[in-house]
Amino acid sequence: MNKNINIKSLIIDKPLKLDCGQTIDNFPLAYETYGSLNKEKDNAILVFHALTGDQFLSGINPITKKEGWWSHAVGSNKAIDTEKYFVICANVISGCLGSFGPSNTNTDTNKIYGTTFPIITINDMVNAQHNLLDYFKIEKLFAVMGGSMGGMQVLQFVSNFPDKARIAIPIACTSSHSAQNIAFNELGRQSIMADNNWLNGDYANQNKNPDKGLSVARMAAHITYLSKNGLQEKFGRKLQERGDLKFSFDADFQIESYLRYQGSVFVDRFDANSYLYITRAMDYFDLSKKYNGNLSKAFEKTKTKFLVISFTSDWLYPTSENKEIVIALNAIGADVAFVEIESDKGHDSFLLDVPEFLNTLKNYINNSYSKISR
Amino acid sequence: MNKNINIKSLIIDKPLKLDCGQTIDNFPLAYETYGSLNKEKDNAILVFHALTGDQFLSGINPITKKEGWWSHAVGSNKAIDTEKYFVICANVISGCLGSFGPSNTNTDTNKIYGTTFPIITINDMVNAQHNLLDYFKIEKLFAVMGGSMGGMQVLQFVSNFPDKARIAIPIACTSSHSAQNIAFNELGRQSIMADNNWLNGDYANQNKNPDKGLSVARMAAHITYLSKNGLQEKFGRKLQERGDLKFSFDADFQIESYLRYQGSVFVDRFDANSYLYITRAMDYFDLSKKYNGNLSKAFEKTKTKFLVISFTSDWLYPTSENKEIVIALNAIGADVAFVEIESDKGHDSFLLDVPEFLNTLKNYINNSYSKISR
Repeated sequence: MNKNINIKSLIIDKPLKLDCGQTIDNFPLAYETYGSLNKEKDNAILVFHALTGDQFLSGINPITKKEGWWSHAVGSNKAIDTEKYFVICANVISGCLGSFGPSNTNTDTNKIYGTTFPIITINDMVNAQHNLLDYFKIEKLFAVMGGSMGGMQVLQFVSNFPDKARIAIPIACTSSHSAQNIAFNELGRQSIMADNNWLNGDYANQNKNPDKGLSVARMAAHITYLSKNGLQEKFGRKLQERGDLKFSFDADFQIESYLRYQGSVFVDRFDANSYLYITRAMDYFDLSKKYNGNLSKAFEKTKTKFLVISFTSDWLYPTSENKEIVIALNAIGADVAFVEIESDKGHDSFLLDVPEFLNTLKNYINNSYSKISR
Repeated sequence: MNKNINIKSLIIDKPLKLDCGQTIDNFPLAYETYGSLNKEKDNAILVFHALTGDQFLSGINPITKKEGWWSHAVGSNKAIDTEKYFVICANVISGCLGSFGPSNTNTDTNKIYGTTFPIITINDMVNAQHNLLDYFKIEKLFAVMGGSMGGMQVLQFVSNFPDKARIAIPIACTSSHSAQNIAFNELGRQSIMADNNWLNGDYANQNKNPDKGLSVARMAAHITYLSKNGLQEKFGRKLQERGDLKFSFDADFQIESYLRYQGSVFVDRFDANSYLYITRAMDYFDLSKKYNGNLSKAFEKTKTKFLVISFTSDWLYPTSENKEIVIALNAIGADVAFVEIESDKGHDSFLLDVPEFLNTLKNYINNSYSKISR
């Protein structure tokens, strides 16, 4: 899907030992940057993307030809001001936008990996992206931030590299995937695997694509991104066009055609196997596991300043789970602020133009930056 | 699937005009009864089943060989005491347990209907079941009750037949399917339709079965039946058997194998097209539509006494939606009681052995029955 598009990537030649036991090296990490790194190299912000996100934060995404997923937040004079900051965003490994993933060709076999690709974890993703600091010769990032799976990467990054970011902003996330989170992801995976064209993950070698299964997976996930009240306000029982019920299985209600549309556009930009791998990484995420459930210990050595943000109507990663992060940080006396933003837009709020959220981001970032001792 | 099993059914010869405009007649309505109708014929309770329920309320279900779905609630000396009451339950039309549905053969074409079967509504289901009163020569039912889609039928029954039931107990339901409800049902339908074996609904004529799609649909629905906290308590991040993560797409977590199991056993007892039709009926349900949104008007003529029951952790048909029914009934001065039962078991609570719920049912039923003037 990303043929003929110039995707910028760094080839990482330092071997990376994965959690599954395998070691990878000489693999691509696709990334984009926005703004300029200053002389002091103290203005770099690393943004981590969510499950279906990518490195194309701002401006026109060359794949979808639409605005990048955080265009309203990242840019000149925006909440994350590219006149001031150097913003980096990389496609996660196991993704499908240029970083090493299941749609790459295995040079040993000359076949596309598919499900022979190793299972990747959030820890692996973050360790791969840490190479960007060496590449840009950045001693310490000003900030790491991200929403949803991006927030999980923020937490993992600070845990792995306690002195590599001045501030960290995990948004609408969790320190450990809940049973319900795993259930919804498993639903998506089963939907893809139920597609006859999935072919045990080998579809790309056989010129097939499990579009139907991937589309249903996307529909399922999409419902979890929106709040019940938000859906009711936006769609309610509104019918398509004029007229009454059609007494058929065509899309009668606007919510039906909306979901079908979300499914159908998704398959044009995303790889089904990447969807399997990335949801697996999310399900495996449990930052406190190594510390026998004591999340505080994951942050013990950190000097990073935290801003944790949640949204009132987010039922996927609700405020209560974001607060667990705050509690764990408070327990070790970390510098942590917490804001719950009022929004009826559900989990998706972090991707939307929610003014209170963007103002909070902007003020916290600028304030923190002004306090850097030079 | 129900071959060689003796399913009791009434052949309805009175033509039934459906909401879609078609008229059906000479069609079967499968039913079961428990207990005995007394001489006064004043002890009959009509129970309506939910989406995937059936007429086999109590005792061993001849299809699944497992206990009926309300065995713990209906029986001798149970909450609904079959020593005292005559309990009737019918399979809804468009179902797959003996009532007229898409798996029946169209005698005009000698082919199984599939999706050529007419779209059925909750109103149609209830009107079909009203024939049971004539059949048993019951002037007035003592009670109508049911949970989830069963509750919708309770509301529709009282609205259609305001003098045919002394008491009505709608449980964990809504007077109108919300956008989120429709979204989850559409997800299930799209999952079935995405299965190559669905064959535009003609699978039964071609000896195929869209098992994979139906299984994924069931998984999706199942998640909505349980509460986030309930899932967390029961499954959390518990792994299968001993050992650690497998770094594969096999079921690592217990919640994954549980969902896969739920999907796989469901396809043995349920017809995919029936699933499409019944979810469609639920989505079309909006009792106040005829009255321009004024739900009270749907109950204007009723003398029926109501007990509305909701469960604290039910996010599919939350307490707020059950309360809307109470408010509408109060607005016309109806006799209505409301109980919100504390339970962490989510929407499924109405199907489970929740003592406070069963005691409430029992006391309300017995109290109401003792007050019948004879």
